[in-house]
Amino acid sequence: MKKTKNTECLRVNLKQTAKFLKKNDNYIILTHASPDGDTLGSAYALYYALNETGKRACVLCPDVIPKKYDYFARKTDHVNRENAVVIAVDVADERLLGALQQEFGGKVDLCIDHHISNTKYAKRLYLDEGAAATTQCIYELIVQMKVNINDITAKALYTGLATDTGCFKYSNVTDKTHLIAAALYEYNIDAAEINRLMFDTKSKKLLELEKMVLETAEYHFEDKCIVLSVTEEMQTKTGCSGTELEGIAVISRSVEGILAGVTIKQIGDEEFKISLRTYPPLDASAICRKLGGGGHKNAAGASVNGTLEQVKALVLDAVKDALEG
Amino acid sequence: MKKTKNTECLRVNLKQTAKFLKKNDNYIILTHASPDGDTLGSAYALYYALNETGKRACVLCPDVIPKKYDYFARKTDHVNRENAVVIAVDVADERLLGALQQEFGGKVDLCIDHHISNTKYAKRLYLDEGAAATTQCIYELIVQMKVNINDITAKALYTGLATDTGCFKYSNVTDKTHLIAAALYEYNIDAAEINRLMFDTKSKKLLELEKMVLETAEYHFEDKCIVLSVTEEMQTKTGCSGTELEGIAVISRSVEGILAGVTIKQIGDEEFKISLRTYPPLDASAICRKLGGGGHKNAAGASVNGTLEQVKALVLDAVKDALEG
Repeated sequence: MKKTKNTECLRVNLKQTAKFLKKNDNYIILTHASPDGDTLGSAYALYYALNETGKRACVLCPDVIPKKYDYFARKTDHVNRENAVVIAVDVADERLLGALQQEFGGKVDLCIDHHISNTKYAKRLYLDEGAAATTQCIYELIVQMKVNINDITAKALYTGLATDTGCFKYSNVTDKTHLIAAALYEYNIDAAEINRLMFDTKSKKLLELEKMVLETAEYHFEDKCIVLSVTEEMQTKTGCSGTELEGIAVISRSVEGILAGVTIKQIGDEEFKISLRTYPPLDASAICRKLGGGGHKNAAGASVNGTLEQVKALVLDAVKDALEG
Repeated sequence: MKKTKNTECLRVNLKQTAKFLKKNDNYIILTHASPDGDTLGSAYALYYALNETGKRACVLCPDVIPKKYDYFARKTDHVNRENAVVIAVDVADERLLGALQQEFGGKVDLCIDHHISNTKYAKRLYLDEGAAATTQCIYELIVQMKVNINDITAKALYTGLATDTGCFKYSNVTDKTHLIAAALYEYNIDAAEINRLMFDTKSKKLLELEKMVLETAEYHFEDKCIVLSVTEEMQTKTGCSGTELEGIAVISRSVEGILAGVTIKQIGDEEFKISLRTYPPLDASAICRKLGGGGHKNAAGASVNGTLEQVKALVLDAVKDALEG
């Protein structure tokens, strides 16, 4: 397949996507950087499905795949990069390809996604904004292709469904999400063990870090806003970093009566990453855009330079404006 | 209906249960003490369903119903206790009727339950040990009775399903659980809001208590056992008590590599409540029986007298035996 810089993105439906996959061979499936259960679950489920039809495919992830996904993330085929067909799954923006952007930027032949914010960077795009997870799209695609689902495929699919919905907790869940989960229970997936790994497994050091973070809790604006801070010192002292820290933002959104949950994580000398979780009427995405970031209505982020106190003041100003607006 | 001390318990199926409910009238529906989402969801869903067929019914709970269930736990009918038909839902043992045991002990005409440990105290028992929640039984009963489901009935049913499964996380979930959840999404239930209330709402004071509890974390037996302590002083200082503390045991079971998560909560001067969470091969129920308590394989409890240090030593001994056994 000839690689061209895409000037246009063709929206394709499920049937067209299935047809495209049946027609071609030698696939490179790309996940987004800082991989989560949905991008990995989608990539591997698609890989196993393509394998099942006799196609060659490999999964490429810009970052090291965390060990906790070992139960479905196995070694994939070797695919020659020269004449490969490139697929990106759950990748809303080319920049999210991270270390793989340089090699594959402008060369994605098909993107399968559920993010409404998809930037239409691929040659073809199958987008279902109503899907709770990209694995929901992949499941429907596999059914459309009439490909056999193996236990490991079902595990990968279930993982994406569960992780992108907080285990069926969030507002992106629909009856379809539950119907697909029910269908996946017909395979030997051991969903309880998957959920234990995905949701209920914290390292001892993370528990130690959480204790430190709770000590930083500050309440503002009549307790409508909580600010939690994760300094570099805490990360060094406990040895916790990267995706391990994702759960901290969850704490900030769980406090009763809170409309804005702010987590400020130090990522450099005078550089901080803000994670914002909001409840209506606040719009996390709008607040983070003011800080040079973006995201979803209920969850967004931004990178801000300055000292911790300066960054905190900036974020609190933005939250205050939103609360008064 | 004449009240007799039951000497025998008649096992009934779904059809017989539906028939019994259609035939009689004036129901008193009992929940268990320290009510949770499943016993309350079951009681109110059954109440609304009976109301829908023109029957009178009231829900009686031995304890105050926490405010967070207000979205479905409304005022029910007045039912004369003299000639009422008594139903217990999600009540595995008559003793769990708490303050209502004296009045209704030996007088339960029908029990609807999913606990394998049900002591068969009722005159009639509809028991589905394979159901993830008693609301799963109630849903099937309502379908069997061909009664209309209202939004509020659906909310009550969903609440039981979600709370008894850790939001579809645990090993009691089956394809049927997900299929019923999918069916309930056809009503206006706002599941995300229910889940936020049930799972992601912590008071500020609980967050403060969690910080204190994390400071007590002790690891034993090559980190296979964690012990968390909740002293009376912590409860007084933060104002957290009772069911608010349930989440602490969840922390103990979430630490990576842990086989035994112990939470020791002070409930009197020299009196402590042990909550034990285990992973195979450990059996929480067996360990707690040694301490005079009991429960399930993965979650059990006991009340132990002594100082905190004495109680801790006792529990650690029992866990050590189990680890070596």
